[in-house]
Amino acid sequence: MNKIDLNSDLGESFGRYSCGNDYEIIKIISSANIACGFHAGDPLVMEQTVKFALNEGIAIGAHPGLPDLMGFGRRNMELTLEEARSYLIYQIGALDGFVKALGGKVQHVKPHGALYNMAASDYNLARAIAEAIYDINSELVLVGLANSELIRAGEDVGLKVANEVFADRAYTKEGKLLSRRESGAIIEDNDLVAKRVLKMVIENKVKAITGEEIEIKADTICVHGDTVTALALVEQINQTLGENDIEVAPFL
Amino acid sequence: MNKIDLNSDLGESFGRYSCGNDYEIIKIISSANIACGFHAGDPLVMEQTVKFALNEGIAIGAHPGLPDLMGFGRRNMELTLEEARSYLIYQIGALDGFVKALGGKVQHVKPHGALYNMAASDYNLARAIAEAIYDINSELVLVGLANSELIRAGEDVGLKVANEVFADRAYTKEGKLLSRRESGAIIEDNDLVAKRVLKMVIENKVKAITGEEIEIKADTICVHGDTVTALALVEQINQTLGENDIEVAPFL
Amino acid sequence: MNKIDLNSDLGESFGRYSCGNDYEIIKIISSANIACGFHAGDPLVMEQTVKFALNEGIAIGAHPGLPDLMGFGRRNMELTLEEARSYLIYQIGALDGFVKALGGKVQHVKPHGALYNMAASDYNLARAIAEAIYDINSELVLVGLANSELIRAGEDVGLKVANEVFADRAYTKEGKLLSRRESGAIIEDNDLVAKRVLKMVIENKVKAITGEEIEIKADTICVHGDTVTALALVEQINQTLGENDIEVAPFL
Amino acid sequence: MNKIDLNSDLGESFGRYSCGNDYEIIKIISSANIACGFHAGDPLVMEQTVKFALNEGIAIGAHPGLPDLMGFGRRNMELTLEEARSYLIYQIGALDGFVKALGGKVQHVKPHGALYNMAASDYNLARAIAEAIYDINSELVLVGLANSELIRAGEDVGLKVANEVFADRAYTKEGKLLSRRESGAIIEDNDLVAKRVLKMVIENKVKAITGEEIEIKADTICVHGDTVTALALVEQINQTLGENDIEVAPFL
Repeated sequence: MNKIDLNSDLGESFGRYSCGNDYEIIKIISSANIACGFHAGDPLVMEQTVKFALNEGIAIGAHPGLPDLMGFGRRNMELTLEEARSYLIYQIGALDGFVKALGGKVQHVKPHGALYNMAASDYNLARAIAEAIYDINSELVLVGLANSELIRAGEDVGLKVANEVFADRAYTKEGKLLSRRESGAIIEDNDLVAKRVLKMVIENKVKAITGEEIEIKADTICVHGDTVTALALVEQINQTLGENDIEVAPFL
Repeated sequence: MNKIDLNSDLGESFGRYSCGNDYEIIKIISSANIACGFHAGDPLVMEQTVKFALNEGIAIGAHPGLPDLMGFGRRNMELTLEEARSYLIYQIGALDGFVKALGGKVQHVKPHGALYNMAASDYNLARAIAEAIYDINSELVLVGLANSELIRAGEDVGLKVANEVFADRAYTKEGKLLSRRESGAIIEDNDLVAKRVLKMVIENKVKAITGEEIEIKADTICVHGDTVTALALVEQINQTLGENDIEVAPFL
Repeated sequence: MNKIDLNSDLGESFGRYSCGNDYEIIKIISSANIACGFHAGDPLVMEQTVKFALNEGIAIGAHPGLPDLMGFGRRNMELTLEEARSYLIYQIGALDGFVKALGGKVQHVKPHGALYNMAASDYNLARAIAEAIYDINSELVLVGLANSELIRAGEDVGLKVANEVFADRAYTKEGKLLSRRESGAIIEDNDLVAKRVLKMVIENKVKAITGEEIEIKADTICVHGDTVTALALVEQINQTLGENDIEVAPFL
Repeated sequence: MNKIDLNSDLGESFGRYSCGNDYEIIKIISSANIACGFHAGDPLVMEQTVKFALNEGIAIGAHPGLPDLMGFGRRNMELTLEEARSYLIYQIGALDGFVKALGGKVQHVKPHGALYNMAASDYNLARAIAEAIYDINSELVLVGLANSELIRAGEDVGLKVANEVFADRAYTKEGKLLSRRESGAIIEDNDLVAKRVLKMVIENKVKAITGEEIEIKADTICVHGDTVTALALVEQINQTLGENDIEVAPFL
């Protein structure tokens, strides 16, 4: 394997509120997850972000979230499967509108925040999400947490899936993300982060917080550009990948 | 001419709030304008309404409105042309998502309420709306007030257009709708309404409030099913059309 | 004891959407819980409902909910205690604005839907709610499910509390409401409902679904006016209370 | 006259979105206008901002806006007088809730953005706003554009009013703000701005864009802290006032 995808959440501004360094991070990633107006983003921001991603030639994905702007889609919320399904279709359709109007193509769907996390461990919810995506366009790739129920549900309904790994997060020996509330959940040594990324990409392995080496499939790496520090980390990851002849490119 | 379209606004419920008699009116119309979540409608309602319209075999259109649920999209609002464009694309895309997921096709777009009225007399706004529609799908039909700037802008950008007339509203001699605030604006004699419809459909003429016969192009007639009285009027119009061998069918 | 309060949720309309039979139910209750714009209600509806309740001379309470209009505040949502506190203060303050502007006084606060249910069993959430209410006005009465954590938290912070019972709902032998998903959760025999109400009011007892008689404190009875059937039940309860010389009056 | 008020709009963050330099500007102003959740602000932000203003000992005002978060309350919107009234009461009440819960007092009300501008020239709207404020608390001070209909309406209903002037904006010879779209509308020479402020405060005069000296009553000066440049200007104004023995203090 000599390529890997770097994805980042973009288009999370809203009205007068600006959020993220879209114009910097987009230069060093290969796939953009664009917010669809529920947890963040608005129609104007979406159109500008799609235009921008098309200009940069990176792959475009929908980043649908819970209908909770005040909580940025990060608060768990009780949803029926029908609600989850219709929220997905609405948001993917809306993004697709802009992509069509500007002459592009949607590559993937990555649920946001609490929706992503709930679907990682709830197969029924994951399945409703996967079916919604399949019904709107069976060619879309479902991006989910590596080893999660979301990946399993995507495969079950016949979608292509992309296993997502996190560069600077610790994993349990079961292959789950260690909760942010636990000590050691965020790895702050950038050199170590870069080495872990390499290992995940080349060997499909990562060292768990308890010391064991575990299997992890890495189709795409989630990176953030919110802060100067975050951007610097992405640049270092990008450079390390280059030095090891690994191309940063969309997973399709 | 031996056919005419009857259109009605559907899917305007929201969450627990129910609105309109969708299940009754849909039996006697040929085109549904489905609310897209800005002035009314929510994802669950949209999916159910699209499913329902597909089952009944009537044509489906997007009914985008201003982002003003509290005002039901009926309050004028200052928009930039970029905002208008992106609000249109977002909403049409969202509806298209459901229609695609359920195996149908969107036929037309009819702006709602204040957006419809503002665009009827503001060419620049009308043009931004028409271009947004064209960009997302140049095969869509733009439904606008007969003789309005919206129709003119639609033709200018190369869209098919459908001139909409109102069965029970008085017209000025310039071919505009008499404001609801004027006396005589609503015609309450159902027999007279039915006769006016016939004349508009067969002769493309209507008698203005000041007595003159004026030209009016009628591709589609707007009807409502909110009340028992409204439904009865639509049934009478439907019957009168049948008795005169005029088929109720989508304009495409 | 020869009086009891009947409370009902009012002012749950929103914009063009009408909900409930406020004008009928208000004649036969003694306390109104008025929605505050988060799960339902809007400023215009709130002002009209407050005016109406003041005209009828019934007691006024705030009915704050989760920020989820689309879900009518009925979907559980993860909140921090700070969020819960500030949502309560915001909504109670807003209602108090109308009550002050119209020359009245707020008597009580009854959380709505999922917020009410979550607080019934989560002491920390209940405590945050109770403290918020106390801080804004220590004279307000907190209405909560009889025997619940919300009642306990209210007492702990020094608020007056009102134990709420449900006329037509079954109770477990632990004094909790039987989930609506269980068979027998709703008691559909109106005569039986009226008798249970009498027993709760006079003896502070109710027969649990498993047959045992349990203690239940009844300061206020929740009734609904959404449907013709619901209204008829309230009328029957009202009449039964009258026949037994029990006055319907606010709990203060 | 030897004192003047400096006011600034605070608490305009929302959820995860941060906006403004509240922690810096608050040190050099005397009155805070706190957003109330319609055009900006959320309950958590409001509580934090009220707490912060109380700690700093500056006066607190409500800053109600149009229900248009996406447009930051800056887009004109058609409102009935009843809607305007109820939107004001709702937002002032909500802010008052926090101020009461934290042991303070609301001093004033300053409408935001498009609502402020519309009310400056529309007496009926201004009157509805003034009456709403009076009804909720007749001791509140209404802050409006100097010489505007809002000031006139406030006086007519018996409210105390505060004439607001803008330090860096040009005025027409009629005493109105020159539209931002006109060249010269923003005065960019900070020394000149400071001198104009002095003249407005001491002599109640300002030089119009066309050269004439006109009368202007200055009870409070609007300043902004959004950018480093804006903050620097406020510091310069503050210093100039101090050098001329003019105290910066609330207008009450």
